[in-house]
Amino acid sequence: MRTDEQPTRISLFAPNGRMGRAIATAVADDPGFEIDADHGDVIVDFSAPSALQASLDRALAAAVPILVGTTGLDDFASRRISAAAKDIAVLRAANTSLGVALLSDLVERAASVLGPEWDIEILEMHHRQKTDAPSGTALALGDAAARGRGTKLNAERGRKGTNLKREEGAIGFASLRGGTVAGDHDVIFAGPEERLILSHRAENRMIFARGALAAAKFLVGKPAGIYSMRDVIDAL
Amino acid sequence: MRTDEQPTRISLFAPNGRMGRAIATAVADDPGFEIDADHGDVIVDFSAPSALQASLDRALAAAVPILVGTTGLDDFASRRISAAAKDIAVLRAANTSLGVALLSDLVERAASVLGPEWDIEILEMHHRQKTDAPSGTALALGDAAARGRGTKLNAERGRKGTNLKREEGAIGFASLRGGTVAGDHDVIFAGPEERLILSHRAENRMIFARGALAAAKFLVGKPAGIYSMRDVIDAL
Amino acid sequence: MRTDEQPTRISLFAPNGRMGRAIATAVADDPGFEIDADHGDVIVDFSAPSALQASLDRALAAAVPILVGTTGLDDFASRRISAAAKDIAVLRAANTSLGVALLSDLVERAASVLGPEWDIEILEMHHRQKTDAPSGTALALGDAAARGRGTKLNAERGRKGTNLKREEGAIGFASLRGGTVAGDHDVIFAGPEERLILSHRAENRMIFARGALAAAKFLVGKPAGIYSMRDVIDAL
Amino acid sequence: MRTDEQPTRISLFAPNGRMGRAIATAVADDPGFEIDADHGDVIVDFSAPSALQASLDRALAAAVPILVGTTGLDDFASRRISAAAKDIAVLRAANTSLGVALLSDLVERAASVLGPEWDIEILEMHHRQKTDAPSGTALALGDAAARGRGTKLNAERGRKGTNLKREEGAIGFASLRGGTVAGDHDVIFAGPEERLILSHRAENRMIFARGALAAAKFLVGKPAGIYSMRDVIDAL
Repeated sequence: MRTDEQPTRISLFAPNGRMGRAIATAVADDPGFEIDADHGDVIVDFSAPSALQASLDRALAAAVPILVGTTGLDDFASRRISAAAKDIAVLRAANTSLGVALLSDLVERAASVLGPEWDIEILEMHHRQKTDAPSGTALALGDAAARGRGTKLNAERGRKGTNLKREEGAIGFASLRGGTVAGDHDVIFAGPEERLILSHRAENRMIFARGALAAAKFLVGKPAGIYSMRDVIDAL
Repeated sequence: MRTDEQPTRISLFAPNGRMGRAIATAVADDPGFEIDADHGDVIVDFSAPSALQASLDRALAAAVPILVGTTGLDDFASRRISAAAKDIAVLRAANTSLGVALLSDLVERAASVLGPEWDIEILEMHHRQKTDAPSGTALALGDAAARGRGTKLNAERGRKGTNLKREEGAIGFASLRGGTVAGDHDVIFAGPEERLILSHRAENRMIFARGALAAAKFLVGKPAGIYSMRDVIDAL
Repeated sequence: MRTDEQPTRISLFAPNGRMGRAIATAVADDPGFEIDADHGDVIVDFSAPSALQASLDRALAAAVPILVGTTGLDDFASRRISAAAKDIAVLRAANTSLGVALLSDLVERAASVLGPEWDIEILEMHHRQKTDAPSGTALALGDAAARGRGTKLNAERGRKGTNLKREEGAIGFASLRGGTVAGDHDVIFAGPEERLILSHRAENRMIFARGALAAAKFLVGKPAGIYSMRDVIDAL
Repeated sequence: MRTDEQPTRISLFAPNGRMGRAIATAVADDPGFEIDADHGDVIVDFSAPSALQASLDRALAAAVPILVGTTGLDDFASRRISAAAKDIAVLRAANTSLGVALLSDLVERAASVLGPEWDIEILEMHHRQKTDAPSGTALALGDAAARGRGTKLNAERGRKGTNLKREEGAIGFASLRGGTVAGDHDVIFAGPEERLILSHRAENRMIFARGALAAAKFLVGKPAGIYSMRDVIDAL
């Protein structure tokens, strides 16, 4: 029988990837967790979209919950996740930092309160090697803002040129790349003569590994369904 | 009979003060309001602590609500406000910007979610002539953070020296003064290898006048009791 | 005979434009200047590219220096300015804020010191109605950075998409638009595990008018030639 | 005979201290350096004020240059350094980051250009365990600003209370403490309706170790005298 004293057993689906190794390091630092080469209490998948079905199948076969941290998933992948969530608990997250999960929650709240005279802009900076822009986290924050407004995201990305006209209700995205920056995100609410700015600064990538462990622990024993990092912070 | 089409009549208790004149300017710009030299629909008091009883008496005599924007009030003043609030609606605010009101709400929410390993620091910058530090708004944000944590504010102000030890659960305050800055506030949640930063930037002081008008309009017709800017944003 | 005690007489070429009116306001606030409906001591032109030749002709005819604050000038306009500068002093500026002029100087210095492992990114935010991106000031700061590196500006504007690859030596530009922001600029030098960030914040547009007056005063009595805001700050 | 191809041999005076170990790690990552348990090409001392004379004596005996990174040195220590610098090259630095060295240079330049209507404020944030405030680096930046103004540093530290009056020419310091922040510094020039802000962000402490290696390499072969990190960046 599992008690609170027993560590949560993490089964890493892709243990040799960048995040897989980071999570293994975080587990080594935290007596509340251990790596289980077999099925463990929860499966953690930070791999590639093409491997999603395999990791879901493994979780379904073992009847254990799964954390899906893979990014770049398409609508077809979303449907696969929904199907699996009928039988097991699935938490899907573009960003497993607890700080970003809370930021997303605050952004939704702020967007729901502030009227249309407050423009929303999202800025992110990452290291010079990141090849996609805007970041998946920036887009997820934009979704949270649009949800708060009760609309669908109307994104203005990569603004440049002349005769530009900011559309009413649009959300602008800007991306900076350089150096070794782990990840900065700013959501700017620009109103008449005042600004509200909600920001997150990651010092390094270990925060994503530690957040993944918190999410994994949250999932143990949860009923079937789709969960998000917001459920994790609500349960803190 | 008052209808929605009629402007809200503002009675300025101290029309010649800095905020009194700013509110008069804001009223002149907004057809939804007019200045009433008599008692109006709502009394707005941005004067001095010594004048508080006079403004409360005027509101009580006219049986109209009152917005108290005066800062530096002591516990005795607070009791006077509570007494008046048995008969009329009283809204008390250290800062009438809607953005700051929302910031305060988000700070409380964030502090309630984040555990003790997240330190809270509050930074503010104002123009070179401001003589008190920290700002009243910074302290109010600190109160919101402490409320979120379910504790009383334990403030560390003006940190300097050697052998300093940050107390567990303390909230630090730092004040910058210079130039003509209208008012910047940052609430920093500094966790293990990540930071969440919630900020407000005022471009000029008219935002406080416009927020005061929104608060005044909110008060019209409200039952007796004590209200805050948070009630105003919740009603938006 | 003009002495130091006499105010500098400003001839506004386009007195009814947005900047023309701002400069008239700044002159009214400063006893060191007066508006001269005739030719004055110096002509100040913040109009449109199509009017450049007319303002240069007026300055040449009166043999007085001219400040050209018009933006969006093409190479043909640059040649006209060079031709006029054989006979009179001409100062051309995309941004007449003294703070931005100094920022530009510091950016050039920093870029000349830091090696290629420091990426340069330039961020700007302006009000929702600005229709060009990046701002002329951001581009001028990029030119200063490239000058410091001893190269020509290789600009990456409006980054978006996937499979992006930051080019060695490129300078990235990102633009935010919203609210009533007067003008924020950040030049970010992102090196290995550290960043140097040089920033300017304009609280309102009067700083451009006051900087234009400082530039106009600088020009009085100067020999023929082309000058910049940097010459103005070097003479402070 | 030493050639450019040979690595610089670093003799660590206090190899087991926090910075000693960081420098050893940086040396292991860089083929241009090696640790020499004997006297090496240059001695690097990040120890304690009480050990200063011993490290200077070792450098004098071996006739090799020395980098003194120890902080908290008093005037007596300064005189010892001056005495040693008659015979060997000594570089003294409160902060060995190249970015901070450049920042200090830019701060001095900006302060020399901007007039007294620009107030200077210095803000720093460090992790929750740092016990002194302001940071030594913040104070060194204040010295650079005062040098630029041609005055001695008049510091206002830990501003708090009422009836405060910002002194003409004073430089304000504010310190934030929390989380695991490696080191943020901002020097703010607050003028009339505009601000110039010069900032540095350290992602972790390895930048100080790498900067120490750059300083050590710079020192090899230098004539006797006192040097600073600014000499290192000027030689880049």
